[in-house]
Formats: sequence, structure tokens, C-alpha cells
Amino acid sequence: MRFGVVFFVLGYLVLSIGITMMVPLVVALIYGDGDAKAFVFSVSITLLVGAALLIAFRHRKGEIRGKEGYMIVTASWVVMSIFGALPFIVSGAIPNSVDAVFESMSGFTTTGASILTDIESLPHGVLFWRSMTHWIGGMGIIVLTVAVLPFLGVGGMSLAKAELPGPVTDKLTPRMVETARILWGVYILLSVVEAILLLLGGMNLFDSVCHTFGTMATGGFSTRNQSMGAFESPFLQYVVVVFMFLAGTNFTLHFYALRGRIGSFWRSPEFRFYFVATGVVTLMIMAELVFAREKPAELAFREASFQTVSIITTTGYATADYCLWSALSQFLLLSLMFMGGMAGSTAGGLKVMRIQLLLQHVRLEMRKLLHPHAILRVRLGGRLVPDSITSMVLSFIMIYFLLLFAGTMIMTALGMDLVSGGTAVIACVSNIGPGLGNVGPTENFSEVNQWGKAVLTFMMLLGRLELYTVLVVFSRGYWRA
Amino acid sequence: MRFGVVFFVLGYLVLSIGITMMVPLVVALIYGDGDAKAFVFSVSITLLVGAALLIAFRHRKGEIRGKEGYMIVTASWVVMSIFGALPFIVSGAIPNSVDAVFESMSGFTTTGASILTDIESLPHGVLFWRSMTHWIGGMGIIVLTVAVLPFLGVGGMSLAKAELPGPVTDKLTPRMVETARILWGVYILLSVVEAILLLLGGMNLFDSVCHTFGTMATGGFSTRNQSMGAFESPFLQYVVVVFMFLAGTNFTLHFYALRGRIGSFWRSPEFRFYFVATGVVTLMIMAELVFAREKPAELAFREASFQTVSIITTTGYATADYCLWSALSQFLLLSLMFMGGMAGSTAGGLKVMRIQLLLQHVRLEMRKLLHPHAILRVRLGGRLVPDSITSMVLSFIMIYFLLLFAGTMIMTALGMDLVSGGTAVIACVSNIGPGLGNVGPTENFSEVNQWGKAVLTFMMLLGRLELYTVLVVFSRGYWRA
Repeated sequence: MRFGVVFFVLGYLVLSIGITMMVPLVVALIYGDGDAKAFVFSVSITLLVGAALLIAFRHRKGEIRGKEGYMIVTASWVVMSIFGALPFIVSGAIPNSVDAVFESMSGFTTTGASILTDIESLPHGVLFWRSMTHWIGGMGIIVLTVAVLPFLGVGGMSLAKAELPGPVTDKLTPRMVETARILWGVYILLSVVEAILLLLGGMNLFDSVCHTFGTMATGGFSTRNQSMGAFESPFLQYVVVVFMFLAGTNFTLHFYALRGRIGSFWRSPEFRFYFVATGVVTLMIMAELVFAREKPAELAFREASFQTVSIITTTGYATADYCLWSALSQFLLLSLMFMGGMAGSTAGGLKVMRIQLLLQHVRLEMRKLLHPHAILRVRLGGRLVPDSITSMVLSFIMIYFLLLFAGTMIMTALGMDLVSGGTAVIACVSNIGPGLGNVGPTENFSEVNQWGKAVLTFMMLLGRLELYTVLVVFSRGYWRA
Repeated sequence: MRFGVVFFVLGYLVLSIGITMMVPLVVALIYGDGDAKAFVFSVSITLLVGAALLIAFRHRKGEIRGKEGYMIVTASWVVMSIFGALPFIVSGAIPNSVDAVFESMSGFTTTGASILTDIESLPHGVLFWRSMTHWIGGMGIIVLTVAVLPFLGVGGMSLAKAELPGPVTDKLTPRMVETARILWGVYILLSVVEAILLLLGGMNLFDSVCHTFGTMATGGFSTRNQSMGAFESPFLQYVVVVFMFLAGTNFTLHFYALRGRIGSFWRSPEFRFYFVATGVVTLMIMAELVFAREKPAELAFREASFQTVSIITTTGYATADYCLWSALSQFLLLSLMFMGGMAGSTAGGLKVMRIQLLLQHVRLEMRKLLHPHAILRVRLGGRLVPDSITSMVLSFIMIYFLLLFAGTMIMTALGMDLVSGGTAVIACVSNIGPGLGNVGPTENFSEVNQWGKAVLTFMMLLGRLELYTVLVVFSRGYWRA
């Protein structure tokens, strides 16, 4: 491992964070809530550190090799979260640094779990930066899962490697840059369209932009204490539903669609599964709301679709209290939470593709019992899946559950009850946001103790970076030889 | 599939059930509670049906081939449960037939879930039969997992195929019979020793025998409303702890130990894991009871070890209300519940060996990331595990969770709340007995509706027969060609 190379790349990253932090500085200056000074200070520190790293390690610039990739990716999110927490601490919005890093990590990992109790009391600059961390994190995640991780041999998208947009070359870097550029273009385009629609629907510019950040990153931070529930306009709610759904879709499919190949959506077996799962659960919940709770059809459809899409995409916005719905509806939502959105989107969770592979694998094992000598292989949408990928996906699911297990053990040891502790871990590993019990949708993470917050911060990082990326860096083998 | 062969084997089974049912008939005659007539009727019907099947299909006798094995095993437990329910229905102890089959299936699968609210009001013959179904089921399970399933290519014991006691031949049947005879010998011996110890400890003969049935089968049916909590003698409780632990151990190890090879226990990596897991959790809970709840050390150790062993072996007896313990202790017990005891024992759950293979597999996948070109294989206790076995074990764990998922969905759709519905399914699939909430240790399954009971009855069957055996019979492929 050449640490110089790592530090050089991180220098770039820190510098970029410093530059993006100028946007909330402008917001702070416009609104004049008194947080501008904190941003000037944070921007200065961040730019200085970034520049210092770049200068100190300028001779270490070079191609990134296998092992270093894991370190750079993991360190990126840690570094972003630490520098991203500066405005929270310096402005006094979140004076405790563990809390501030939790909030910042929750932003950059697009989790949306918060330790804040009164969001509306915060200055506009801080609120804007809080939402913006989502958007930056979402940007990072798309490129990471679609372009970077497959080359490290990790992540659900390894499968789709051959399908990536951008010119195919043997060189790793040029192709990654090209892919990143294309996907960011799609991401920015969709964001602009959503923000305009929200403006047209009657939101002010500030709220439009902040909620666009939260939606496109499937994050869930809002500018209101009541989250999206503060906006009662059906049009606004439907706009958010549609864009959450799009944000939970593989961004390469959007790219193809923009190129005129709309059919790409339906040709993707993963998209079909994602679409049908969302549709079926929405209709089942709508049926409950109409027949058992006598709501008008439109309202029932709106509430059902909003909550379903918000949860399958792991966004975490809410317009209705689903804790009051039937056990079956709650259970269906909980299951969607575990699944999450498509690989190559900003959504968290296990990802639809992994669930599909899992189901295929199980079907195959059953058939093997009946035909012990047949040679059976896992297929997805007609394409053969290499055994090594199936094996890795199964391990991923196992590690995911082992992590939930270990995390819940720690949280209960730190004094949380089983439901709150367990769902806090799930909400963080799957980058959802709210859990149940003391960390439920109408509560927040402020009452979790400091050690618990630190553990959950790490869980968000693990979940967001597809487990392996982080775990490898923490393995003994990584540091040997 | 030759149904004639299947019916012929089932004829034998029904006849055997009829004969064993004569034991509770004798008990009923001794106590004279008025249930003797019900047993005379049940025994007659059962013997008649058994004889009729044997005679009708006497020409169909023949070697059992691959596919037929699955059908025979699945049908065996169904048939046992139906005929086993007769005494409950006819005596009027459980007039509803869905309830009676639930109770009977719970007995034969050694689950221990009950729909009865006042156990002590039942006549002695019925109570004895209820406990005896455990013992018969346990006997069936040992032979099934150690001798039958490995030859069908199913179950955690496939691994240990080469280690089975009994002469090694190429013929399937002679070896199975020999293995069965040896294991039953061990099972009966341990049962006799436990019953004598319980008698010496002051239990009456009836309770000694019934609790021996419940212990050795890791079932959990008791003759008292307070379960084992009705017996306050430390000696009695320790005897039950020791024998529950032994019943959760692979019976082939007992066989070797009886032959003087005591070291076999510790040489088994599965036993070491089982022993250490039990020990660590016991000590952790004991520490809580001593330091946080100020109980005397002996009582703390007794309560901790009893509850821990009862849960890891999926027996379900209780001497303390663990719902009052800390969240961490409850979580540890919940985890042991999922794991269960050793393969080749009467315990339920996923089995220790599967958890070990899972952990090995995950470790390996992590190492593969760092050494993409290394050839790494799963090992257990130094022995290489074939990929096909690892793959099947992973699928098993996946199917197990998918089943919990599907079962919980059905139970919530039938109107149960999430915690009660979810834990009812876990308790039945893992053959534990009590769940939490409305089906918790101080409650029972009487309030579950009829459809729910039917589903849970099926879940017990699935869990007990290692999922695959039953699922294969219900697959489309099984009936094709």
C-alpha cells in the first residue's frame, strides 16, 4: 500500500468538499441567519487541508492499484463526514462532535437518520448544507457502485459490467471518468427537473432544492419538523413519489432512456421486479386504506404509494403514520426495507438484484435434489451468472445479517431495548433513516448514547459502501504482506 | 413414484403407532380417569388401518428409490400426527380436530407448542400420550437425520456420512437399520438414566417419565401448568439441564463415548462450538443475575444455565421468566434459538454445523477479495467441505429465512400482530415451542385462529424435516416425468 497515493486522492476530495461548501455559504449570506461566519471558517479549514495534502503528496500521484482502491473509497466517506461536520460544530447547530459526525455521515451515506429534535430552528445555511450532503453522497454512490466497485470485484453491479455506458477500453481510469461524467449528467438533469416541478407546485426555492437533494439521493433529510408531511399538496407529493422511484432505479437505465431506448427499463429483469414489488405492495396497502379505513381512493393511493416508494428506496420521507396500519401492511413495508432499490441507484438495502439471485439460487438447489446429475446454472434475464458472483452475493446477504446480529448485540449491551436497538441498526446499515420504537419515524436518534451513535455511524458507512469495501480494510489479511 | 411402496411403508408405521398407543392405554387403565375407552377406540382404529394398508399393498413391498424417500418421510410425520391426534379428539381433551392435529404435530416434531390452557385438568393417559409423542418423534428424528437424510443428499449430517457408526456397506437399507438400532439404544439408555435420576430426586414415576420424554426429545411438553417451574428442587433442575444438553448433542458422539472414546466429544468442532456457545451465554447471563439483580451465585447459575440450555436445544422448558431480563440477555437467547443444537440430535433450529459452515464461507469470500487468484476451500475441523455441501447449506439458511418471511406474512394477514405472528412462525419452524407476545412463554397458541394453526402445523413439519424433504414433495418438478 502506497499511502502517498491515497493521501493525494484524499487531498483532491477534501478540496472539492471545501469548494462545494461555498454553496451553503452563499445561502447563509442571503438569509443572514448568522451562520455565514461558521461557513467561512469551515471552508477555509477544508480548503487549506485539501491544498496541503495535494502539495505534500504531489510527487506521489500515480495509478491506483487494487488494494489502495478499498482504502481510498472507505477513507473518502470518513473524510467527507469529518469535514462535512465542521459547519454543524462551528455554527453551534450541533456542538457535540460525535453528534455532528453522525449527522454528517448520515447525510453523505444518504441514510437520513438524525439526532436533531427541532430542525426548523436551524439557520438556512446549515439546513442547506445538511441536505446537500445527501446530494453529494448520492453522486458518489452512483459512480462508486456503477464504475468503481465492479472493478474491485465487489457489489451487485459486477454482473452488469459489460452493460455500462461509456466507451469500452482496457484502461480502468479513462472509462471510469467517462462513466462518471455520463451518470452525473443524468443525476443533475433529473435533479433540475424535480426542483422545477416542486417550484411549480408551490414550494419556495429553498425547500424545492433541499427536498430535491433528499429525494434524488434517497436520503430523507427535510427542512421541516414534519418532514414531507408539512406539504399537503397532492401534486408535490406525487412529484416526490415519482422522483424517489426514479432515484431507486439503476442510473444506467435512465441514460439509455434519455438516448431514446425507453424499452431498456422493461428489458431489465431487475427493474421489472422492482416495479412489480412496488406496485403490488402499493395496491395491497391502498386496498386496506379504502376498504378497512374508508379513505377516498385518491388519498389512499397517494398515501400507499408515497410510503411504499419511500421505504423501498430507503428514502425515509413520510406523509402518513404507517405504525397505525395493519400488521400485514407494516410487515410488507418492513420486507421492502430489507430489499431496497436497484443496484446502481442511490437506494440502500440489499438491492433487488441480490434478492433475485438469492431466489434463483434457492430454486436451483431444490431442482438439484431431484436431478442430482444435471448441471444447473443460475440465470438472470436469460444471462448466465458465474458461480463466483452467486457465491459472493450469497455471502453478502449472510454478512449483512451477521452485521445486523452483531450490531443489535452491541446496541442492547449499551442499554437499548431489542426493538429500538435492532431497528436502529437495520435503519443505519440499510441507509434507511428512521427505525421503530425509540428511534421510530416520529422520534430520532438524539437519545442514543455516544458510544451507540459512534457504532451506528460506522454501520452507515459499512452499509453504504456495500460492506466488503470497508470490511476488507479492517481485515488482518489487508495489512499483511 | 410407486405409491404402493409408500403405502406399504406407511402401513408399518401406522401399525407401530397403534402398538405404542397401548402404553398410554395402560396408564389410562391404572389411573382410571375415564380416558381408557378413548384409547381402546384409537388403538383399534389405528391398528385396523395399519393392517389394512399392509395387506392391501403386501405385493408392492420393494426397495425404496430416491424420490419415494422424500414422500415416505414427509407422509410419515403427517400420518403419525393424524393418528396421534385420535386420543385427544375421542377423549374430548381437544375436541376440535385442527387443534388436536396441531398438538399432535407439535409433539411428534418435538416442538412443544401447545393450544392447551389447563394442562393439569387432563386425564393421565392423555397427558402421557402427549409427552410420549415427543419421545417417538425424537427417535424418528435421530434416525432420520443421521441415517436417512444423508442418503437422500439432504441435511447437515451429509458431511459426517463417513463417520456414522455401524458397518459400512454399499447397500442402503442394511446399514440404515444397523445405524438406527445403535442410535435408538443410546437414546433409550439415556432416557432410562434420566428417568431414574428424576425419580431419585423426588419426582413421581409419572412425572419422571413424562419429563424424560420432553427432555430427551428437546420437546418441552410438561405435565404441569407451570412447566418445569413447578419443580423447585435444584437437583431435578440440574438433571434436566444436563439431559437437555446431551439431547442437543449428536447422538453418534454418545455412541462413541459409550464405547470408551470420550475424546470424540472434544475432537468434534461442532461440539466445541455448541459447548462454548452454551457456556459463554450462561456465564454472561449469570453475571447479570448476580451483579445487576443480586441473586445468589448458585441460583443465578442454575437459572442462567437452565434457560440457556433449554433455548439452544429448542426444548422450551422454563424455570424463570427471561422476558424480565436485560435486552442483551434476551438477544443472546434469541440468537441461540436461531442456531439450535447439533446436527444428528433431537434439537431444532438451523443447527450448529450450518452456522459454522456459514461463518467459514463468509471468511473465505473476504479472503478471496484480497487474493483473487488463490484457490480457497471451506474446511471444518481440518476436513475439506465439498462445494456442493456448502452451497446446499447456504441455500438451507436462505430458505429458512424465506420461510420465516412467508410465514410471518401469512400470520399477519390472518390478523396477528407482527411480534406474535413472527415469533410464532420462528417457534414452529425451529421446533422451539413458545414465541413472544400473544404466544409467549406464559401464553399459548389457543388464541391463534384455525387457519393460522393449520399454517403453523405445516411450519412445524417443514422445520422438523429439514425443509428440503417437504419442499421437494411440494415442488412441481417432483410430480413431472
